[in-house]
Amino acid sequence: MSLLIKNGQVVTATDSFVGDIHCQGETIVALGRDLAVPADATVIDATGKLVFPGFIDPHVHIYLPFMGTYAKDTYDSASRAALVGGTTTLIEMVCPGRAEDPVQAYHQWKAKAEGTSACDFAFHMGVTRFDESTPAAMREIVADGTASFKVFLAYKGALGVDDDELYQTLKLAKELGVIVTAHCENESLVAKLQAELLASGKTGPEWHEPSRPVQVETEGVRHLMTFAELTGAHVYVVHTSCKGAVHAATEARLRGVNAWVETVIPYLVLDDTAAQRGPATGHADFEGAKFVMSPPIRAARHQPFLWDALRSRAVSTVATDHAPFDFQGQKEMGRGDFTKIPNGIPSVEHRIRLLYTHGVATGRIDLNTFVDAASTQAAKLFGLFPRKGTIAVGADADLVVYDPGVEETLSAETHLMATDYDAFEGWRVQGRCEAVTVRGEVMVRDGKFVGQLGHGQFLKRQPTHF
Amino acid sequence: MSLLIKNGQVVTATDSFVGDIHCQGETIVALGRDLAVPADATVIDATGKLVFPGFIDPHVHIYLPFMGTYAKDTYDSASRAALVGGTTTLIEMVCPGRAEDPVQAYHQWKAKAEGTSACDFAFHMGVTRFDESTPAAMREIVADGTASFKVFLAYKGALGVDDDELYQTLKLAKELGVIVTAHCENESLVAKLQAELLASGKTGPEWHEPSRPVQVETEGVRHLMTFAELTGAHVYVVHTSCKGAVHAATEARLRGVNAWVETVIPYLVLDDTAAQRGPATGHADFEGAKFVMSPPIRAARHQPFLWDALRSRAVSTVATDHAPFDFQGQKEMGRGDFTKIPNGIPSVEHRIRLLYTHGVATGRIDLNTFVDAASTQAAKLFGLFPRKGTIAVGADADLVVYDPGVEETLSAETHLMATDYDAFEGWRVQGRCEAVTVRGEVMVRDGKFVGQLGHGQFLKRQPTHF
Amino acid sequence: MSLLIKNGQVVTATDSFVGDIHCQGETIVALGRDLAVPADATVIDATGKLVFPGFIDPHVHIYLPFMGTYAKDTYDSASRAALVGGTTTLIEMVCPGRAEDPVQAYHQWKAKAEGTSACDFAFHMGVTRFDESTPAAMREIVADGTASFKVFLAYKGALGVDDDELYQTLKLAKELGVIVTAHCENESLVAKLQAELLASGKTGPEWHEPSRPVQVETEGVRHLMTFAELTGAHVYVVHTSCKGAVHAATEARLRGVNAWVETVIPYLVLDDTAAQRGPATGHADFEGAKFVMSPPIRAARHQPFLWDALRSRAVSTVATDHAPFDFQGQKEMGRGDFTKIPNGIPSVEHRIRLLYTHGVATGRIDLNTFVDAASTQAAKLFGLFPRKGTIAVGADADLVVYDPGVEETLSAETHLMATDYDAFEGWRVQGRCEAVTVRGEVMVRDGKFVGQLGHGQFLKRQPTHF
Amino acid sequence: MSLLIKNGQVVTATDSFVGDIHCQGETIVALGRDLAVPADATVIDATGKLVFPGFIDPHVHIYLPFMGTYAKDTYDSASRAALVGGTTTLIEMVCPGRAEDPVQAYHQWKAKAEGTSACDFAFHMGVTRFDESTPAAMREIVADGTASFKVFLAYKGALGVDDDELYQTLKLAKELGVIVTAHCENESLVAKLQAELLASGKTGPEWHEPSRPVQVETEGVRHLMTFAELTGAHVYVVHTSCKGAVHAATEARLRGVNAWVETVIPYLVLDDTAAQRGPATGHADFEGAKFVMSPPIRAARHQPFLWDALRSRAVSTVATDHAPFDFQGQKEMGRGDFTKIPNGIPSVEHRIRLLYTHGVATGRIDLNTFVDAASTQAAKLFGLFPRKGTIAVGADADLVVYDPGVEETLSAETHLMATDYDAFEGWRVQGRCEAVTVRGEVMVRDGKFVGQLGHGQFLKRQPTHF
Ligand SMILES: [Zn+2]
Ligand SMILES: [Zn+2]
Ligand SMILES: [Zn+2]
Ligand SMILES: [Zn+2]
Ligand SMILES: [Zn+2]
Ligand SMILES: [Zn+2]
Ligand SMILES: [Zn+2]
Ligand SMILES: [Zn+2]
Repeated sequence: MSLLIKNGQVVTATDSFVGDIHCQGETIVALGRDLAVPADATVIDATGKLVFPGFIDPHVHIYLPFMGTYAKDTYDSASRAALVGGTTTLIEMVCPGRAEDPVQAYHQWKAKAEGTSACDFAFHMGVTRFDESTPAAMREIVADGTASFKVFLAYKGALGVDDDELYQTLKLAKELGVIVTAHCENESLVAKLQAELLASGKTGPEWHEPSRPVQVETEGVRHLMTFAELTGAHVYVVHTSCKGAVHAATEARLRGVNAWVETVIPYLVLDDTAAQRGPATGHADFEGAKFVMSPPIRAARHQPFLWDALRSRAVSTVATDHAPFDFQGQKEMGRGDFTKIPNGIPSVEHRIRLLYTHGVATGRIDLNTFVDAASTQAAKLFGLFPRKGTIAVGADADLVVYDPGVEETLSAETHLMATDYDAFEGWRVQGRCEAVTVRGEVMVRDGKFVGQLGHGQFLKRQPTHF
Repeated sequence: MSLLIKNGQVVTATDSFVGDIHCQGETIVALGRDLAVPADATVIDATGKLVFPGFIDPHVHIYLPFMGTYAKDTYDSASRAALVGGTTTLIEMVCPGRAEDPVQAYHQWKAKAEGTSACDFAFHMGVTRFDESTPAAMREIVADGTASFKVFLAYKGALGVDDDELYQTLKLAKELGVIVTAHCENESLVAKLQAELLASGKTGPEWHEPSRPVQVETEGVRHLMTFAELTGAHVYVVHTSCKGAVHAATEARLRGVNAWVETVIPYLVLDDTAAQRGPATGHADFEGAKFVMSPPIRAARHQPFLWDALRSRAVSTVATDHAPFDFQGQKEMGRGDFTKIPNGIPSVEHRIRLLYTHGVATGRIDLNTFVDAASTQAAKLFGLFPRKGTIAVGADADLVVYDPGVEETLSAETHLMATDYDAFEGWRVQGRCEAVTVRGEVMVRDGKFVGQLGHGQFLKRQPTHF
Repeated sequence: MSLLIKNGQVVTATDSFVGDIHCQGETIVALGRDLAVPADATVIDATGKLVFPGFIDPHVHIYLPFMGTYAKDTYDSASRAALVGGTTTLIEMVCPGRAEDPVQAYHQWKAKAEGTSACDFAFHMGVTRFDESTPAAMREIVADGTASFKVFLAYKGALGVDDDELYQTLKLAKELGVIVTAHCENESLVAKLQAELLASGKTGPEWHEPSRPVQVETEGVRHLMTFAELTGAHVYVVHTSCKGAVHAATEARLRGVNAWVETVIPYLVLDDTAAQRGPATGHADFEGAKFVMSPPIRAARHQPFLWDALRSRAVSTVATDHAPFDFQGQKEMGRGDFTKIPNGIPSVEHRIRLLYTHGVATGRIDLNTFVDAASTQAAKLFGLFPRKGTIAVGADADLVVYDPGVEETLSAETHLMATDYDAFEGWRVQGRCEAVTVRGEVMVRDGKFVGQLGHGQFLKRQPTHF
Repeated sequence: MSLLIKNGQVVTATDSFVGDIHCQGETIVALGRDLAVPADATVIDATGKLVFPGFIDPHVHIYLPFMGTYAKDTYDSASRAALVGGTTTLIEMVCPGRAEDPVQAYHQWKAKAEGTSACDFAFHMGVTRFDESTPAAMREIVADGTASFKVFLAYKGALGVDDDELYQTLKLAKELGVIVTAHCENESLVAKLQAELLASGKTGPEWHEPSRPVQVETEGVRHLMTFAELTGAHVYVVHTSCKGAVHAATEARLRGVNAWVETVIPYLVLDDTAAQRGPATGHADFEGAKFVMSPPIRAARHQPFLWDALRSRAVSTVATDHAPFDFQGQKEMGRGDFTKIPNGIPSVEHRIRLLYTHGVATGRIDLNTFVDAASTQAAKLFGLFPRKGTIAVGADADLVVYDPGVEETLSAETHLMATDYDAFEGWRVQGRCEAVTVRGEVMVRDGKFVGQLGHGQFLKRQPTHF
């Protein structure tokens, strides 16, 4: 089986040239001008189109129990949504409760994807407790090919670790060469502020942001940086939303801390007025709940800062923190108490097109930065490189043929995500993923999913952070 | 004419794979595994070796009048030295005196290279005066293909510009889409401190650093950042030597200033004890003069900071600021008055091997960062990309086959640079440039120059900094 | 002659107690409870009132030529206005043109005050040029008792000094033990931004602030700090208006630079909407011109920052930069060109009451900080201490009996300043200076001037900044 | 009873004048020149001497159980030592274990002082646990006149509070108008680093500093600042030892956080080589243990920074953290395990003379700053003002007549502290407290204690931090 993508503008994190890509089986075998067309080849004409490496979303939630219910997506819906949106690899957070056995949880999470996912997948292993049994369990999981951890400085008692556990997790990670991704918010502050707001009758979704102000996040990042500095561990701050947090990480990098920063697409395009939507702003009642995630969507002045940080590469990656809950029946659980609104903004399907539209098309970032932030850096940081994250000889044939000339409208009516609403309902986006391949297999054609569920593979990763 | 480099580990700023590179004429036409060998092809077997894009030194001085004498290198010696050291493109500073006509000076500088240089070359046009005739002159020079400026905040009265001129230069650059490289030291402070030191009998080369302390450089960078912020111009700080200066630029980037930072190889591997060498330290008299450049080589504690900044990409490029003066007869002009020592450390030949040895081999930076800092970023920032700075379809066939297994000793006896001393005399380096090509032509074989003088071309560049 | 102020709440920068103050001749001789009333004593009952040391305004302009006209106040009007406002000592800026002889200018300025001023006075000697004759001239002026300099980083060519001159001034000051007050704005940036705004038709007073943005001021402060650090001179940043500038000075202080920061009352109570007043905001045409000073009044968000900085003593003093021009005939010279509006907001009369009303009465600062910022720090920094700036045995009997219970309205109709408008027209203030003494003489009673012109003395000061 | 101190140079935080101080009973009633000598007066001739307000040590430990033993001082020894050293008021930390009843503990601590102490005293109430009973207990203690709390971010499980408790303590403090003093080190980091050092055989006192590096303290201060910012509580960082910690607090002050910083005398005059003393440095075995306190004595480069911060008032107070353990039998418990060395450097007796010698006599700080840092600021911050901390009408007659002309040698042989060693053995100090009074009673004459034990009073304080 042979695939030839002809005459596209091939873009990687570094390069940009017009040429052909020849893939054999699952792998890219040659790049060139006017490559000969093998007899057996499927040919996709990419003339006038952009060809990107398959995008990687390094921060999604698919299987996600919450208050007796579950996030709506399965790998069926999520992987199809990802693919039509240009994302060929998902990295999901495994988030066991403190009481759960981590190895069992890991396999439970993994089983949800295996055999179902249409795109490739990997996991960050949540270390939500650290006791004497933890090192062995984590070694087993790393040996299985899952070479990154996740910790929560927030959600103490549930998923969060305390400082002793954090230190031990980072030391173990350093020893194993595993990077630690971290949700950085000070839990006590959040809990206290939530209680105070609720006690004073401030119960609507607009109070979610004030319950987790930027100081809480900045504190979390600084805290992690100190622990990373003293343990030598490599760390990755997930979903960074504000200036103070990026500054804290940048200062740490300048003093030699091995730290990287992720932001997520909602922070780049939405502001805190979203969660304030309701009758008073001419929207439906409780509409703001659709935009509740943590850290919260911030005041608009943080947006240009995040774009600048992305351009200067102080922010390495743009993920989603996709966590899909229906408005009806799920987000609504938080009526009268914003702390009960399930957190998350479904965006795995839209990340690439929103980033292209608001980033590349506006000139805020160039095409190479776009690819770097949405694909290459994730591959490099999480041990997927050079299989994923680039268009190079020997890399997996994960390719996205993107037509920047098409304009479309996002909507819950048309999206493949399982949720009953779309946070970007009615937004116009520039460009469409005409064709998407995963290891040489065409999964999307003309913007439609044409692949097989179950085609996706679990990606075994080696530790690289020594 | 066809060239095939077989089976090397091809490294770009992003990628790393084992494969073949096929070039036709001056251009790379295909990358792949086991590419067929064309009948007419020159084949270089790179098995077990690294293949890099030709390196770019974005900051060299070749033609450089100083106090009635001249720097020693010509394009004959300098381009051969560059090539055996893996550098295939030089960007030279055109530094006319304030009284000179800039267009004439530009052509004078250019004429020194044309027809002589064995490697490709380009120029940063020094704006050393700004009056009503300057815009027209600069437009003419930009139209000729020289799309970057150089300004000196130091050397006022000679090469330096005052604040009015700086502002005007930046506005013009912004309008023309031209990046402005800048030497950032506050001239008045330097002049006053020099005078005070000399007046108190502190005349040796060890007083050069105290005459230009880190505050002077940090001040210069902050100054430039303010001007860049208010004009919108894109700026590039040359030869950054210290923590304060990098911090100043990083903070500016975070507030949206379009700024990039260069360091040079001497700062990464030498410290201020070098300029203190003399009889008291068991060295020859006046030995310290060999290590006088501006900004000065700093205290050792700045070194790890610079490596960290390089790794985190707060520093974009590693250049040389090559400025070659003999010890005898030239450096010696400064006996009894360190301000008369011609500034410069000859290093155009050694940059790549020193950076590989002290950066890659020690694990401080990885191979991609090495290529990025020594080649790709310079190409991108200075409008040479995608012709230069990468190994990609359509790029110039500027390639370096590097054997990391060879160890050699640097010495004035063997170097090709014209100076009578080598600042790195006796240093061991890891690796050798086995083969180097410029636009498909093999210029170096087995580490020896085998090319033709005059093969080098002037590289016309389009403005890209709008 | 003997004066007894009975039973007031005596407040100094440190203390606060209820008691009596006994003065003999010009001097305070005792503080105590129920001091015996000497037979010859004038007694002022201060029961229920506050007693402050006479306030010092360390930054005023009285004699001030501008574009062929002069600022309106003389020492006649200004010293009476100062006194009814509680200010017993003025420090005026001597600002000779570059072409003027500094010693002559100094005596010219001094002559305007001597014999006329009702309050005491001193000068900051403007160093507006530095050549070989300057050191001798400055030594003469310092020997005359004027132990502080003023430099302008702005107004280059007119009053401003270049970097060489700045360095030399600071070195001379360091040698003489003289503090250097400095107006910190980068002149080139201002000139260029002004020209650009005017060229684009932006000619009204509302464009004054954008022509001197906060970056211009922050740059100036950083610049001064570097020069202070490298010369060891003690420096004082006049009229600091914004966060960046205070940060720059605070960082410098933490690295050992001897620097102090002044703000002025307009920055604490006005914001940039003042200069935007005009028909569009329901005000008279060109009304905004009344609020033009440099640095400009900033956006409102800088105000709470300045109050915090005052409370934490990062800002040492609150002055006025009083520079009184009529609206009619003078401010109006700038119609159609904001750069021609004479700079200044008349406020020497209102500083204390505005600071009390907006600072003490609102709880932003306490009474000790109020006294410290408006009197004591100026006395200490400028060599007036312990004669001035405190209520202590041996100090001059400069006293202010302040009744915080009285509320009044500020107005051009009632003020003693010579200008035809009052920038605080209609503002309510809390408190009135019931009695004010200068060296034991009662100059104000019941809020009215009752003293003699000419009572004021020139205050000879010794250098203290070694 | 009447006391007249004649003709001294009276120094307060603001003032300095030559004059007399008249006290009646316990109170200062008049300050003046040549005050009449009342018939019944005790007269102390202070000609040629300095007269200071009684100094306040706001951070001492006297009753201090540790590992089955107790710190050596009692109020008998400690208050006499304090007085001969010029300290007339001690503020002791009440540090109940988590299991203890706070009210009972408070009274236990208080009982140790009452009836015994020769100097006045007050307490910071340690909040070492926060549960539902805590608010009532703390209200009771505050009502008793103890208007300040102490929390430990370190020593979790023993004295330390977790983040929830910290938040609640700060909220309660804010409500009650009580300032919270805080020991800021991250406990988990300390515990882990200690365990690692011990495990690798690093057991001597020289490893104490590496077990609590500056990052641990800086993290603690930042942490506290975030909590103070979000609760509005007023906080006071005890025993700040390093640059990062002072920077963190200064930045917080600039953004409006009500925070103050204490350093202690050992950090100003000792460096980390002290704890490294042992046979290898020509000292007695385990000598370094004498210098173990937490945070640890830092590298010498922090010293000039702390002096600068003191001069610029970024550091408000200089205390001791006096915690007296014998070398023999107590410090020695830590042989073979530095974590078992009781923490503390006895210095309550020497603080003033060391600060005068190394601060005032060297010119690093002036006399007013000396008084402010060692007396006035503590009085103001902790609600003792205006009774204590100044020389003013109505203030307590706590006075120190200091002869700066006397030079003496510190030694365990002569000191009044109970410990068997003196950390400053053999150090020369400039000046002696000739006379010291407490509320009008002469407690020290000719440098010797001549007072009565039990003269000291418990100082009831009102909350002032609203
Ligand atoms: Zn923290
Ligand atoms: Zn998440
Ligand atoms: Zn240079
Ligand atoms: Zn150069
Ligand atoms: Zn000014
Ligand atoms: Zn002024
Ligand atoms: Zn402590
Ligand atoms: Zn303590």
